[in-house]
Amino acid sequence: MSDTKKIAFIGLGIMGAPMAANLVEAGFDVVGYNRSQPAVDALVEAGGRGASSIAEAVADVDVVAVMVPDSPDVEDVLTGEEGVFASAKAGTLVIDFSSIRPDVSARLGKVGADAGLKVLDAPVSGGEAGAKEAVLSIMVGGAPEDFAAGQEVFDAVGKTIVHVGPAGSGQTVKAANQLIVAGNIQLVAEALVFLEAYGVDTEAALEVLGGGLAGSTVMARKGEGMRARQFDPGFRLELHHKDMGIVTSAAREAGVVVPVGALVAQLVASSVASGDGKLDHSGLLKLVEQLSGRTQA
Amino acid sequence: MSDTKKIAFIGLGIMGAPMAANLVEAGFDVVGYNRSQPAVDALVEAGGRGASSIAEAVADVDVVAVMVPDSPDVEDVLTGEEGVFASAKAGTLVIDFSSIRPDVSARLGKVGADAGLKVLDAPVSGGEAGAKEAVLSIMVGGAPEDFAAGQEVFDAVGKTIVHVGPAGSGQTVKAANQLIVAGNIQLVAEALVFLEAYGVDTEAALEVLGGGLAGSTVMARKGEGMRARQFDPGFRLELHHKDMGIVTSAAREAGVVVPVGALVAQLVASSVASGDGKLDHSGLLKLVEQLSGRTQA
Repeated sequence: MSDTKKIAFIGLGIMGAPMAANLVEAGFDVVGYNRSQPAVDALVEAGGRGASSIAEAVADVDVVAVMVPDSPDVEDVLTGEEGVFASAKAGTLVIDFSSIRPDVSARLGKVGADAGLKVLDAPVSGGEAGAKEAVLSIMVGGAPEDFAAGQEVFDAVGKTIVHVGPAGSGQTVKAANQLIVAGNIQLVAEALVFLEAYGVDTEAALEVLGGGLAGSTVMARKGEGMRARQFDPGFRLELHHKDMGIVTSAAREAGVVVPVGALVAQLVASSVASGDGKLDHSGLLKLVEQLSGRTQA
Repeated sequence: MSDTKKIAFIGLGIMGAPMAANLVEAGFDVVGYNRSQPAVDALVEAGGRGASSIAEAVADVDVVAVMVPDSPDVEDVLTGEEGVFASAKAGTLVIDFSSIRPDVSARLGKVGADAGLKVLDAPVSGGEAGAKEAVLSIMVGGAPEDFAAGQEVFDAVGKTIVHVGPAGSGQTVKAANQLIVAGNIQLVAEALVFLEAYGVDTEAALEVLGGGLAGSTVMARKGEGMRARQFDPGFRLELHHKDMGIVTSAAREAGVVVPVGALVAQLVASSVASGDGKLDHSGLLKLVEQLSGRTQA
């Protein structure tokens, strides 16, 4: 970069912490805020600076990045009394990396614009590993010129970076992403339990299935773990449950019927209701086993 | 090959014809049989020989390959009065490349063994293009030593070649393959219709979705065609309908509950019932549009 850009990073959790560290690494002047202090201390150790409030963090920066869990969290951070919109300079670029409801993102984009800010929704895919390695996929909604202005930031944390439409569109694509991912996991789960019931060599089966039209990133990354019943997260079922709520609601509002998406949302909900919410989303396989009477009660 | 092996090829259709031609190319002495003569003539032109009956084709060969549409066709070819089991020499290796019911394959494997033959079920994935380029994925069920004996034949027509278990296991894996493929298509279809309803740039969306955990071979190979509503087969919905019947029956018989597989089977059935059976299986997208009131009646 020609001159060092100042960026505030709000939300230094599993995803936010490595993303903020990668921004430091890329030469940004990063000031972090997090509700609990240890995450701020870790960022300072990584070469960033700490702030004790959102208002302090965003007061004098070029870019504000946000990475928090859910729609109400983003609303708090952005529109709270001492939040980003109230505290940032006019013209500040606000990039929300959180995965939230598309309608909330679209509305917040408008509120931000009215407050003289440039707001992008930029949810990511790729998980903790993708965040650490700065190879996230980033789906961005907002004005094209704001997307262009955010390029340096996106390049520091991601690999596949795409502008998909106006405010809220990033969230819409992320919602579709979560629909497909959950569905693909469920399909691999059904196939594995089916093959096991017939005594097939599932290691060999996954190899040949992965080499053909049935191949998927889910199968490649999660298949072996599912065979071994290794469900350490990764991405937790309870978070995917939240996301299935987002995508089924958004589909319903648009009048789009998603029969498989709706069924998978129910299966994810059942897994969470059974107490498996803390497992990786590949833990959907446990439900298929239970439904088929193939596990102890 | 040290000495030229003789192979009979029964069923010279869309898949069988290029596979037989590739066997000629690989140096086999191929004698073909097909119910209609033009396909036999084409094989002769490609350097093979023709036969006017199954009995004539298989009388004096080392290997018999079969590639016909459905379970009853395979039963006819193998166990008919002048069929393969009645006409081939003891010790002949019989490789059934057709995609049929696993229980039928398992039974025919036993009948063949009792008749002194070595029988493998070896359904393939990869379609007409994969057959032409000799890069099919082949999932093989049967005795390990018979699998080893078939290696030269498999190498001449396929790329990913895996032994997955005893007789019928190849069909079981193919059934799982078809479950996953239909499900992945339906998920991409639901995602695309959803994204279109929100006015998202679906070309950009497919790029970013394909780069993350939502990526799949279905998305990579069929996504653009689905965006463009190009449903020329490819693999026809009516054939996938047959296969969904196989996998849901087989799951039911094993006591395995496949909720998404069962729903997708219904959606494929509905597409076929609506008159779309001749379309490529990616034509499932039309049904999602219809269900969402997004096409003209």
